Amino acid sequence: MTRKGLLLILSSPSGAGKSTLARRLMDWDPTLRFSVSATTRAPRPGEVDGREYYFKSRAEFEAMAAAGEMLEHAEVFGNFYGSPKGPVETAMAEGRDTLFDIDWQGGQQIRNSSLGRDVVSIFVLPPSIAELDRRLRGRAQDSDEVIAGRMAKSRDEISHWAEYDYVIVNHDIDRAFEELVTILRAERMRRDRQPGLSEFVRGLNREFDAR
Amino acid sequence: MTRKGLLLILSSPSGAGKSTLARRLMDWDPTLRFSVSATTRAPRPGEVDGREYYFKSRAEFEAMAAAGEMLEHAEVFGNFYGSPKGPVETAMAEGRDTLFDIDWQGGQQIRNSSLGRDVVSIFVLPPSIAELDRRLRGRAQDSDEVIAGRMAKSRDEISHWAEYDYVIVNHDIDRAFEELVTILRAERMRRDRQPGLSEFVRGLNREFDAR
Repeated sequence: MTRKGLLLILSSPSGAGKSTLARRLMDWDPTLRFSVSATTRAPRPGEVDGREYYFKSRAEFEAMAAAGEMLEHAEVFGNFYGSPKGPVETAMAEGRDTLFDIDWQGGQQIRNSSLGRDVVSIFVLPPSIAELDRRLRGRAQDSDEVIAGRMAKSRDEISHWAEYDYVIVNHDIDRAFEELVTILRAERMRRDRQPGLSEFVRGLNREFDAR
Repeated sequence: MTRKGLLLILSSPSGAGKSTLARRLMDWDPTLRFSVSATTRAPRPGEVDGREYYFKSRAEFEAMAAAGEMLEHAEVFGNFYGSPKGPVETAMAEGRDTLFDIDWQGGQQIRNSSLGRDVVSIFVLPPSIAELDRRLRGRAQDSDEVIAGRMAKSRDEISHWAEYDYVIVNHDIDRAFEELVTILRAERMRRDRQPGLSEFVRGLNREFDAR
Protein backbone atom coordinates (compact mmCIF):
# COMPACT_ATOMS: atom_id res chain seq x y z
CA MET A 1 0.00 0.00 0.00
CA THR A 2 1.56 3.29 -1.01
CA ARG A 3 0.85 6.73 0.32
CA LYS A 4 0.58 9.86 -1.74
CA GLY A 5 3.76 11.90 -1.38
CA LEU A 6 3.58 15.39 0.06
CA LEU A 7 4.97 18.62 -1.36
CA LEU A 8 7.29 20.34 1.10
CA ILE A 9 7.75 23.96 0.13
CA LEU A 10 10.63 25.90 1.63
CA SER A 11 10.75 29.64 0.99
CA SER A 12 12.86 32.43 2.41
CA PRO A 13 14.74 35.51 1.34
CA SER A 14 18.09 34.76 -0.25
CA GLY A 15 20.69 34.35 2.48
CA ALA A 16 18.35 33.10 5.21
CA GLY A 17 19.72 29.57 5.00
CA LYS A 18 17.03 27.91 2.90
CA SER A 19 19.40 26.19 0.45
CA THR A 20 21.61 24.85 3.24
CA LEU A 21 18.52 23.51 5.01
CA ALA A 22 17.26 21.94 1.77
CA ARG A 23 20.61 20.24 1.14
CA ARG A 24 20.81 18.90 4.68
CA LEU A 25 17.25 17.61 4.48
CA MET A 26 18.09 15.74 1.27
CA ASP A 27 21.06 14.14 3.04
CA TRP A 28 18.88 13.27 6.04
CA ASP A 29 16.27 11.51 3.89
CA PRO A 30 17.50 10.08 0.59
CA THR A 31 13.93 9.11 -0.37
CA LEU A 32 13.05 12.80 -0.68
CA ARG A 33 12.99 14.08 -4.23
CA PHE A 34 14.32 17.57 -4.84
CA SER A 35 12.34 19.58 -7.38
CA VAL A 36 14.92 21.01 -9.77
CA SER A 37 13.55 24.23 -11.21
CA ALA A 38 13.71 25.22 -14.85
CA THR A 39 15.02 28.68 -15.66
CA THR A 40 15.88 30.91 -18.60
CA ARG A 41 18.72 32.62 -16.73
CA ALA A 42 22.29 31.83 -17.78
CA PRO A 43 24.19 29.19 -15.81
CA ARG A 44 26.68 30.52 -13.24
CA PRO A 45 30.18 29.06 -13.10
CA GLY A 46 30.01 25.53 -11.70
CA GLU A 47 26.27 25.08 -12.22
CA VAL A 48 25.27 21.88 -14.00
CA ASP A 49 22.16 21.48 -16.16
CA GLY A 50 19.68 19.24 -14.33
CA ARG A 51 21.39 19.68 -10.97
CA GLU A 52 21.03 23.34 -9.91
CA TYR A 53 18.51 24.09 -12.68
CA TYR A 54 17.24 22.85 -15.99
CA PHE A 55 18.58 25.62 -18.22
CA LYS A 56 16.10 26.44 -20.96
CA SER A 57 15.83 28.97 -23.74
CA ARG A 58 12.97 31.41 -23.47
CA ALA A 59 11.18 29.63 -26.32
CA GLU A 60 11.59 26.21 -24.69
CA PHE A 61 10.36 27.53 -21.34
CA GLU A 62 7.34 29.23 -22.85
CA ALA A 63 6.45 26.08 -24.77
CA MET A 64 6.56 24.00 -21.55
CA ALA A 65 4.41 26.53 -19.67
CA ALA A 66 1.91 26.70 -22.56
CA ALA A 67 1.67 22.88 -22.55
CA GLY A 68 0.78 22.89 -18.83
CA GLU A 69 4.06 21.20 -17.93
CA MET A 70 4.89 23.72 -15.21
CA LEU A 71 3.40 23.35 -11.73
CA GLU A 72 4.20 27.03 -11.19
CA HIS A 73 6.26 29.64 -12.94
CA ALA A 74 7.05 33.32 -12.66
CA GLU A 75 9.32 35.98 -14.05
CA VAL A 76 11.96 37.38 -11.67
CA PHE A 77 14.51 40.02 -12.74
CA GLY A 78 13.65 39.37 -16.38
CA ASN A 79 14.16 35.60 -16.24
CA PHE A 80 11.59 32.82 -16.02
CA TYR A 81 11.70 30.26 -13.23
CA GLY A 82 9.35 27.31 -12.86
CA SER A 83 8.80 23.84 -11.39
CA PRO A 84 8.32 21.06 -13.98
CA LYS A 85 5.18 19.11 -13.13
CA GLY A 86 6.01 15.60 -14.43
CA PRO A 87 8.65 14.58 -11.88
CA VAL A 88 6.44 15.81 -9.02
CA GLU A 89 3.48 13.70 -10.13
CA THR A 90 5.74 10.67 -10.53
CA ALA A 91 7.17 11.12 -7.03
CA MET A 92 3.70 11.56 -5.49
CA ALA A 93 2.44 8.41 -7.17
CA GLU A 94 5.47 6.52 -5.79
CA GLY A 95 4.69 7.81 -2.30
CA ARG A 96 7.81 9.94 -2.24
CA ASP A 97 7.83 13.48 -0.85
CA THR A 98 9.12 16.33 -3.00
CA LEU A 99 11.11 19.25 -1.63
CA PHE A 100 10.74 22.66 -3.30
CA ASP A 101 13.23 25.48 -2.76
CA ILE A 102 11.12 28.23 -4.33
CA ASP A 103 9.95 31.78 -3.72
CA TRP A 104 6.57 33.04 -2.52
CA GLN A 105 5.19 33.30 -6.05
CA GLY A 106 5.86 29.62 -6.69
CA GLY A 107 4.58 28.65 -3.25
CA GLN A 108 1.39 30.58 -3.79
CA GLN A 109 0.76 28.97 -7.18
CA ILE A 110 1.32 25.42 -5.93
CA ARG A 111 -0.84 26.00 -2.83
CA ASN A 112 -3.62 27.20 -5.14
CA SER A 113 -3.18 24.37 -7.65
CA SER A 114 -4.97 21.02 -7.69
CA LEU A 115 -2.10 19.67 -5.56
CA GLY A 116 -2.64 22.29 -2.86
CA ARG A 117 -4.07 19.75 -0.40
CA ASP A 118 -0.75 17.95 -0.33
CA VAL A 119 1.38 21.01 0.38
CA VAL A 120 3.25 21.64 3.62
CA SER A 121 4.83 25.08 3.45
CA ILE A 122 7.60 26.48 5.61
CA PHE A 123 9.00 30.01 5.63
CA VAL A 124 12.52 30.57 6.93
CA LEU A 125 13.18 34.02 8.42
CA PRO A 126 16.65 35.46 9.05
CA PRO A 127 17.43 36.48 12.64
CA SER A 128 18.01 40.07 11.45
CA ILE A 129 18.53 42.07 8.26
CA ALA A 130 22.09 42.87 9.34
CA GLU A 131 22.78 39.12 9.40
CA LEU A 132 21.02 38.61 6.06
CA ASP A 133 23.20 41.35 4.56
CA ARG A 134 26.34 39.77 6.00
CA ARG A 135 25.44 36.37 4.53
CA LEU A 136 24.66 37.85 1.10
CA ARG A 137 27.99 39.69 0.98
CA GLY A 138 29.74 36.42 1.72
CA ARG A 139 28.91 35.33 -1.82
CA ALA A 140 31.93 36.79 -3.57
CA GLN A 141 30.64 36.46 -7.11
CA ASP A 142 27.82 39.01 -6.75
CA SER A 143 28.22 42.74 -7.39
CA ASP A 144 26.95 45.44 -5.02
CA GLU A 145 24.19 46.19 -7.48
CA VAL A 146 23.08 42.56 -7.51
CA ILE A 147 23.15 42.51 -3.70
CA ALA A 148 21.05 45.70 -3.52
CA GLY A 149 18.54 44.09 -5.88
CA ARG A 150 18.49 40.96 -3.72
CA MET A 151 17.83 43.00 -0.58
CA ALA A 152 14.82 44.62 -2.24
CA LYS A 153 13.63 41.16 -3.29
CA SER A 154 14.25 39.91 0.26
CA ARG A 155 11.91 42.52 1.67
CA ASP A 156 9.27 41.54 -0.86
CA GLU A 157 9.80 37.84 -0.06
CA ILE A 158 9.58 38.41 3.71
CA SER A 159 6.29 40.27 3.25
CA HIS A 160 4.70 36.91 2.34
CA TRP A 161 5.72 35.00 5.48
CA ALA A 162 2.13 34.88 6.75
CA GLU A 163 1.00 32.69 3.82
CA TYR A 164 2.99 29.71 5.11
CA ASP A 165 1.95 26.86 7.41
CA TYR A 166 5.10 26.97 9.51
CA VAL A 167 7.77 29.55 10.29
CA ILE A 168 11.36 28.85 11.31
CA VAL A 169 13.56 31.72 12.49
CA ASN A 170 17.10 30.72 11.56
CA HIS A 171 19.08 31.96 14.57
CA ASP A 172 21.23 28.85 14.40
CA ILE A 173 21.45 26.51 11.41
CA ASP A 174 21.60 23.30 13.48
CA ARG A 175 18.54 24.24 15.48
CA ALA A 176 16.70 25.42 12.36
CA PHE A 177 17.49 22.09 10.67
CA GLU A 178 16.27 20.16 13.68
CA GLU A 179 13.01 22.14 13.57
CA LEU A 180 12.64 21.42 9.86
CA VAL A 181 13.06 17.68 10.45
CA THR A 182 10.52 17.83 13.30
CA ILE A 183 7.95 19.41 11.00
CA LEU A 184 8.48 16.84 8.24
CA ARG A 185 8.34 13.93 10.70
CA ALA A 186 5.13 15.20 12.29
CA GLU A 187 3.47 15.82 8.92
CA ARG A 188 4.25 12.23 7.97
CA MET A 189 2.44 11.07 11.11
CA ARG A 190 -0.79 12.69 9.96
CA ARG A 191 -3.45 10.03 9.65
CA ASP A 192 -4.06 10.65 5.97
CA ARG A 193 -0.35 10.44 5.15
CA GLN A 194 0.39 7.10 6.79
CA PRO A 195 0.20 4.20 4.37
CA GLY A 196 -1.60 1.05 5.41
CA LEU A 197 -3.42 2.38 8.48
CA SER A 198 -6.85 1.31 7.19
CA GLU A 199 -5.52 -2.17 6.53
CA PHE A 200 -3.88 -2.25 9.97
CA VAL A 201 -7.19 -1.38 11.68
CA ARG A 202 -9.00 -4.02 9.58
CA GLY A 203 -6.46 -6.47 11.01
CA LEU A 204 -7.32 -5.38 14.57
CA ASN A 205 -11.01 -5.92 13.80
CA ARG A 206 -10.30 -9.42 12.46
CA GLU A 207 -8.56 -10.09 15.79
CA PHE A 208 -11.67 -8.91 17.67
CA ASP A 209 -13.84 -11.15 15.46
CA ALA A 210 -11.67 -14.18 16.15
CA ARG A 211 -11.96 -13.92 19.95
CA MET B 1 2.85 38.95 23.47
CA THR B 2 1.03 35.74 24.37
CA ARG B 3 -0.17 33.02 22.08
CA LYS B 4 -3.46 31.21 22.40
CA GLY B 5 -2.88 27.77 23.88
CA LEU B 6 -3.80 24.69 21.88
CA LEU B 7 -5.92 21.73 22.93
CA LEU B 8 -4.05 18.46 22.55
CA ILE B 9 -6.50 15.57 22.55
CA LEU B 10 -5.18 12.08 23.13
CA SER B 11 -7.59 9.19 22.62
CA SER B 12 -7.14 5.43 22.47
CA PRO B 13 -8.72 2.25 23.68
CA SER B 14 -7.96 1.47 27.31
CA GLY B 15 -4.63 -0.33 27.52
CA ALA B 16 -3.03 1.21 24.42
CA GLY B 17 -0.69 3.35 26.48
CA LYS B 18 -2.50 6.68 26.35
CA SER B 19 -2.27 7.43 30.08
CA THR B 20 1.44 6.57 30.22
CA LEU B 21 2.04 8.84 27.23
CA ALA B 22 0.02 11.64 28.82
CA ARG B 23 1.96 11.35 32.10
CA ARG B 24 5.31 11.39 30.31
CA LEU B 25 4.28 14.40 28.23
CA MET B 26 3.34 16.29 31.40
CA ASP B 27 6.81 15.52 32.81
CA TRP B 28 8.46 16.58 29.55
CA ASP B 29 6.70 19.95 29.53
CA PRO B 30 5.65 21.30 32.93
CA THR B 31 3.87 24.26 31.25
CA LEU B 32 1.27 21.87 29.84
CA ARG B 33 -1.98 21.81 31.73
CA PHE B 34 -3.70 18.47 32.14
CA SER B 35 -7.48 18.60 31.84
CA VAL B 36 -8.78 16.69 34.85
CA SER B 37 -12.15 15.22 33.94
CA ALA B 38 -15.21 15.30 36.15
CA THR B 39 -17.06 12.03 36.68
CA THR B 40 -19.96 10.57 38.61
CA ARG B 41 -18.28 7.20 38.97
CA ALA B 42 -17.01 6.16 42.41
CA PRO B 43 -13.30 6.74 43.18
CA ARG B 44 -11.07 3.66 42.95
CA PRO B 45 -8.61 2.92 45.77
CA GLY B 46 -5.80 5.48 45.66
CA GLU B 47 -7.62 7.98 43.46
CA VAL B 48 -7.61 11.55 44.76
CA ASP B 49 -10.33 14.10 44.03
CA GLY B 50 -8.95 16.75 41.66
CA ARG B 51 -6.00 14.57 40.59
CA GLU B 52 -7.39 11.56 38.67
CA TYR B 53 -10.89 13.05 38.47
CA TYR B 54 -13.16 15.58 40.04
CA PHE B 55 -15.65 13.25 41.69
CA LYS B 56 -19.16 14.66 41.45
CA SER B 57 -22.63 13.50 42.40
CA ARG B 58 -25.03 13.02 39.54
CA ALA B 59 -26.90 16.16 40.57
CA GLU B 60 -23.71 18.23 40.71
CA PHE B 61 -22.58 16.97 37.33
CA GLU B 62 -25.92 17.64 35.67
CA ALA B 63 -26.01 21.14 37.14
CA MET B 64 -22.54 21.89 35.68
CA ALA B 65 -23.52 20.53 32.26
CA ALA B 66 -26.78 22.51 32.28
CA ALA B 67 -24.85 25.69 33.15
CA GLY B 68 -22.60 25.19 30.11
CA GLU B 69 -19.57 24.54 32.31
CA MET B 70 -18.61 21.35 30.46
CA LEU B 71 -16.59 21.54 27.25
CA GLU B 72 -17.82 18.01 26.49
CA HIS B 73 -19.55 15.27 28.40
CA ALA B 74 -20.96 11.82 27.79
CA GLU B 75 -22.37 8.83 29.60
CA VAL B 76 -20.24 5.67 29.59
CA PHE B 77 -21.26 2.47 31.40
CA GLY B 78 -23.92 4.41 33.31
CA ASN B 79 -21.55 7.11 34.59
CA PHE B 80 -21.06 10.65 33.37
CA TYR B 81 -17.66 11.93 32.31
CA GLY B 82 -16.85 15.45 31.19
CA SER B 83 -14.18 18.14 30.77
CA PRO B 84 -14.78 21.31 32.83
CA LYS B 85 -14.51 24.35 30.57
CA GLY B 86 -13.19 27.04 32.92
CA PRO B 87 -9.63 25.76 33.44
CA VAL B 88 -9.23 25.21 29.68
CA GLU B 89 -10.22 28.79 28.85
CA THR B 90 -7.87 30.10 31.53
CA ALA B 91 -4.96 28.04 30.16
CA MET B 92 -5.66 29.15 26.58
CA ALA B 93 -5.72 32.82 27.60
CA GLU B 94 -2.37 32.33 29.38
CA GLY B 95 -0.91 30.78 26.23
CA ARG B 96 -0.63 27.38 27.85
CA ASP B 97 -1.52 24.18 26.02
CA THR B 98 -4.02 21.77 27.58
CA LEU B 99 -3.73 17.99 27.34
CA PHE B 100 -6.92 15.91 27.23
CA ASP B 101 -6.93 12.18 27.93
CA ILE B 102 -10.48 11.52 26.70
CA ASP B 103 -12.46 9.15 24.52
CA TRP B 104 -13.79 9.65 20.98
CA GLN B 105 -17.07 11.11 22.21
CA GLY B 106 -15.25 13.86 24.08
CA GLY B 107 -12.84 14.42 21.21
CA GLN B 108 -15.69 14.73 18.75
CA GLN B 109 -17.54 17.25 20.92
CA ILE B 110 -14.48 19.46 21.46
CA ARG B 111 -13.55 19.36 17.76
CA ASN B 112 -17.06 20.51 16.94
CA SER B 113 -17.14 23.19 19.64
CA SER B 114 -16.17 26.85 19.27
CA LEU B 115 -12.64 25.82 20.32
CA GLY B 116 -12.35 23.29 17.47
CA ARG B 117 -9.88 25.44 15.55
CA ASP B 118 -7.37 25.08 18.37
CA VAL B 119 -7.57 21.30 18.61
CA VAL B 120 -4.74 18.92 17.69
CA SER B 121 -6.00 15.36 18.02
CA ILE B 122 -3.99 12.17 18.23
CA PHE B 123 -5.25 8.60 18.27
CA VAL B 124 -3.07 5.90 19.81
CA LEU B 125 -3.54 2.39 18.41
CA PRO B 126 -2.33 -0.80 20.09
CA PRO B 127 0.05 -3.00 18.06
CA SER B 128 -2.48 -5.86 18.29
CA ILE B 129 -5.60 -6.88 20.17
CA ALA B 130 -3.67 -9.72 21.83
CA GLU B 131 -1.30 -7.12 23.28
CA LEU B 132 -4.20 -4.87 24.31
CA ASP B 133 -5.78 -7.82 26.12
CA ARG B 134 -2.49 -8.64 27.85
CA ARG B 135 -2.12 -5.04 29.07
CA LEU B 136 -5.71 -4.91 30.32
CA ARG B 137 -5.31 -8.15 32.28
CA GLY B 138 -2.23 -6.68 33.93
CA ARG B 139 -4.53 -4.42 35.92
CA ALA B 140 -5.24 -6.75 38.80
CA GLN B 141 -8.18 -4.86 40.25
CA ASP B 142 -10.53 -5.46 37.33
CA SER B 143 -12.81 -8.49 37.02
CA ASP B 144 -13.13 -10.61 33.85
CA GLU B 145 -16.51 -9.05 33.30
CA VAL B 146 -15.09 -5.54 33.48
CA ILE B 147 -12.31 -6.55 31.07
CA ALA B 148 -14.84 -8.01 28.61
CA GLY B 149 -16.76 -4.75 28.79
CA ARG B 150 -13.57 -2.80 28.17
CA MET B 151 -12.72 -4.91 25.12
CA ALA B 152 -16.13 -4.13 23.62
CA LYS B 153 -15.56 -0.45 24.36
CA SER B 154 -12.07 -0.73 22.85
CA ARG B 155 -13.50 -1.92 19.57
CA ASP B 156 -15.96 0.95 19.57
CA GLU B 157 -13.17 3.41 20.43
CA ILE B 158 -10.88 2.08 17.68
CA SER B 159 -13.67 2.47 15.13
CA HIS B 160 -13.22 6.26 15.47
CA TRP B 161 -9.51 6.39 14.68
CA ALA B 162 -10.11 8.11 11.33
CA GLU B 163 -11.54 11.24 12.99
CA TYR B 164 -8.13 12.21 14.39
CA ASP B 165 -5.41 14.45 12.91
CA TYR B 166 -2.56 12.08 13.80
CA VAL B 167 -2.20 8.39 14.52
CA ILE B 168 0.51 6.74 16.62
CA VAL B 169 0.78 2.94 16.66
CA ASN B 170 2.24 2.09 20.07
CA HIS B 171 4.61 -0.77 19.22
CA ASP B 172 7.11 0.60 21.69
CA ILE B 173 6.32 3.15 24.39
CA ASP B 174 9.58 5.10 24.03
CA ARG B 175 9.16 5.46 20.30
CA ALA B 176 5.48 6.34 20.68
CA PHE B 177 6.41 9.02 23.21
CA GLU B 178 9.06 10.43 20.92
CA GLU B 179 6.45 10.63 18.14
CA LEU B 180 4.02 12.39 20.45
CA VAL B 181 6.65 14.99 21.37
CA THR B 182 7.48 15.48 17.68
CA ILE B 183 3.84 16.22 16.89
CA LEU B 184 3.48 18.72 19.75
CA ARG B 185 6.75 20.47 18.84
CA ALA B 186 5.77 20.75 15.17
CA GLU B 187 2.29 22.04 15.97
CA ARG B 188 3.88 24.74 18.11
CA MET B 189 5.96 25.81 15.10
CA ARG B 190 2.84 26.56 13.09
CA ARG B 191 2.86 30.19 12.08
CA ASP B 192 -0.39 31.03 13.86
CA ARG B 193 0.79 29.42 17.10
CA GLN B 194 4.10 31.25 17.47
CA PRO B 195 3.82 34.33 19.68
CA GLY B 196 5.48 37.53 18.57
CA LEU B 197 6.16 36.63 14.92
CA SER B 198 4.28 39.66 13.57
CA GLU B 199 6.26 41.92 15.90
CA PHE B 200 9.50 40.17 14.86
CA VAL B 201 8.80 40.80 11.17
CA ARG B 202 7.90 44.43 11.93
CA GLY B 203 11.39 44.67 13.46
CA LEU B 204 12.95 43.30 10.25
CA ASN B 205 11.05 45.92 8.25
CA ARG B 206 12.29 48.69 10.55
CA GLU B 207 15.80 47.41 9.83
CA PHE B 208 15.12 47.63 6.08
CA ASP B 209 13.79 51.18 6.53
CA ALA B 210 16.88 52.26 8.46
CA ARG B 211 19.33 51.20 5.72
